[in-house]
Amino acid sequence: MFSKEHTMMGVAYPAGFKAAGVRAGIKKSGNLDVAVIYSENEAAVAGVFTKNQVAAAPVRVSKIVVGTGTAHAVVANAGCANACTGEQGLRDAEKMCDIAAKELNCRNDDVIVASTGVIGVHLPMDKMETGIKAAIKELSKEGSVNAGNAIITTDTYSKACATEVTIGGKEVRFGAIAKGSGMIQPDMATMLCFITTDAAIDHKLLQIALSEITETTFNMISVDGDMSTNDMVTVMANGQAGNAKITEKNGDYDIFYNKLKEICTELSKRIAADGEGATKFLTIHVSGAEKFADAKQVAMSVAKSPLVKTAFFGEDPNWGRVICAVGYSGVRMSPEKTIVKFGDVTVYAHSIGAEYDAEALKKVMAAHDILIDIDLGEGDADATVWSCDFSYEYVKINGEYHT
Amino acid sequence: MFSKEHTMMGVAYPAGFKAAGVRAGIKKSGNLDVAVIYSENEAAVAGVFTKNQVAAAPVRVSKIVVGTGTAHAVVANAGCANACTGEQGLRDAEKMCDIAAKELNCRNDDVIVASTGVIGVHLPMDKMETGIKAAIKELSKEGSVNAGNAIITTDTYSKACATEVTIGGKEVRFGAIAKGSGMIQPDMATMLCFITTDAAIDHKLLQIALSEITETTFNMISVDGDMSTNDMVTVMANGQAGNAKITEKNGDYDIFYNKLKEICTELSKRIAADGEGATKFLTIHVSGAEKFADAKQVAMSVAKSPLVKTAFFGEDPNWGRVICAVGYSGVRMSPEKTIVKFGDVTVYAHSIGAEYDAEALKKVMAAHDILIDIDLGEGDADATVWSCDFSYEYVKINGEYHT
Repeated sequence: MFSKEHTMMGVAYPAGFKAAGVRAGIKKSGNLDVAVIYSENEAAVAGVFTKNQVAAAPVRVSKIVVGTGTAHAVVANAGCANACTGEQGLRDAEKMCDIAAKELNCRNDDVIVASTGVIGVHLPMDKMETGIKAAIKELSKEGSVNAGNAIITTDTYSKACATEVTIGGKEVRFGAIAKGSGMIQPDMATMLCFITTDAAIDHKLLQIALSEITETTFNMISVDGDMSTNDMVTVMANGQAGNAKITEKNGDYDIFYNKLKEICTELSKRIAADGEGATKFLTIHVSGAEKFADAKQVAMSVAKSPLVKTAFFGEDPNWGRVICAVGYSGVRMSPEKTIVKFGDVTVYAHSIGAEYDAEALKKVMAAHDILIDIDLGEGDADATVWSCDFSYEYVKINGEYHT
Repeated sequence: MFSKEHTMMGVAYPAGFKAAGVRAGIKKSGNLDVAVIYSENEAAVAGVFTKNQVAAAPVRVSKIVVGTGTAHAVVANAGCANACTGEQGLRDAEKMCDIAAKELNCRNDDVIVASTGVIGVHLPMDKMETGIKAAIKELSKEGSVNAGNAIITTDTYSKACATEVTIGGKEVRFGAIAKGSGMIQPDMATMLCFITTDAAIDHKLLQIALSEITETTFNMISVDGDMSTNDMVTVMANGQAGNAKITEKNGDYDIFYNKLKEICTELSKRIAADGEGATKFLTIHVSGAEKFADAKQVAMSVAKSPLVKTAFFGEDPNWGRVICAVGYSGVRMSPEKTIVKFGDVTVYAHSIGAEYDAEALKKVMAAHDILIDIDLGEGDADATVWSCDFSYEYVKINGEYHT
């Protein structure tokens, strides 16, 4: 589905896009920390942003950029979130746009900005200016790996993907880089994801597609239940693939939509799997709900339970904690109708624990990827949430991550 | 406020009450595990129970007992929760009532039953029967300490208190034992609390008082956000103090109410402070809300955030995580109006971090008891939630607590 060969090209895989990542001295570690993604021509743009009312300055600025319907570039940094930084924070975020726009010879409201890292600290704007200028000089078709590494924080690796699909006889390419790790629900050591494509598509349709897809992908991740001040997902579509511009919900739109959803699904799963301190990747599938919102609420209740998360860390098939989290989710359910499986082993059915093959269950619990499958027996709706376990390492990372 | 001298007498402090705790072999450790509390005469009773839809068998049975308005005894065990045990679980809980009623020569719907421990395992009824009979033989005015120890699970100590107040010229006594520790929100390694008093009060008024008081005491604790299948708080009032029976909301009622609230507040705080693996006791006070429910929602959002909890474990004054949790609580708030203090040190005001005395803040963070004080600046309502930090020990306890 995703070509490994092209993954390294990431956001620069689609025609007309370049990327770069440089060291600007914003991360204490001295690692790569400023990324730029650039489209040669003005691209249609769509974006989704954190619903946290304490939204960071770059979120507020980038919402305005996305509102114009077009963008030329993304400028992002790690090491400092520019959140809870008041008026100066807003001016700093706007300054990031100005610096990039001047170098790239585009409008400042064509530059998306994003930040991730410590809250409540002002951006070092001198370093930022040097960094943005350096990154723009380095823009290339090979720059996506560096850009990806420049946006990560406590992630153990940079997430990237590249893929293509044929629309109206033309090859349309997609690329993406993303980071996650902590404060994930879409989250705040922050989830960031930048997607590029050379598809030609109307920006309003692009926004509809992204908003819809986000509901069943990025909004279905939970690492720790914390929702970031800085979360952001954007798509830039520059039209260089030469397909007939998609302006209505036709067959071409469906192909585009499904491919975009594939990318968002894949990155969501990878972000959950790389949650802070994670040793297990948990897929929580709830079926038999009366509606999607119910299924999601039950799945999130299980995904967020520290007792469930620590049990899976300990490889303990403690289904009692799972059914308990189902019972307090706030969604009406009946213990008599509910069935819980770990992998394909039924552990709870019709209000009591099931007889199970202990060896088979042990194998399920020992694996890295574990499915928690809950059937409420009430209706036809289902939802899937991706999560991870809770380990000593999570406590270590977050107890020792000093401000 | 609470006499240390009488604390040891606990639930047997009020006139006419006795207690006992014995080893029945239900806990793997071989510790005390069956408790009985007994009133010589039939007492007025009130109770509040878990809202978890996967309510355990003893919860379902005890709701019926409380519904009758009277009770003679409480029979409780630790080591097995009798939750998710289907029809047999219900029969076992009823059997507990029957065994005790026969020995105590009272009606079986006068016996409250409660269980805490592992979910999904049937009670060993032979051991239970021997245990209940042995405990009833041992009932005494000195038995509350053993009863308290017989209901704890991962608690590091048994919570008890005893106090008295004068109502209409008569000394009215109160006693209580409680356990908490994990799955607390009122919770499931389970919160149990049994209160006794020799006050004479109508059972309907007693229920009104307990239900109201629970909203601002037991329902304001969060250890891990998990709500137990087995939570239960009951009050038995046997009238032996000889006060004029309280049958309306008069001055005597107010005195009674305030004393009962003192007890519930004290035990709630102790349960939170003894949360699994806790090294810090956190009081989260939210003021300036438009209504109590808003203030509680914001406080709970902060109390439940793993990022906030691990930061306090690390003694890191990471106010960014606190204001972030305020921002995603779902209650409308304005970053510009919000003020956050740790102890008496202002760390965030009007959308940015505040200048603070680093030494003073360090002292606040190093203490065992820490106040997180959040003023939303919107209205006059406030709420207080008690919580604790998240430590390696929490992960250890819950990752290694095998079913």
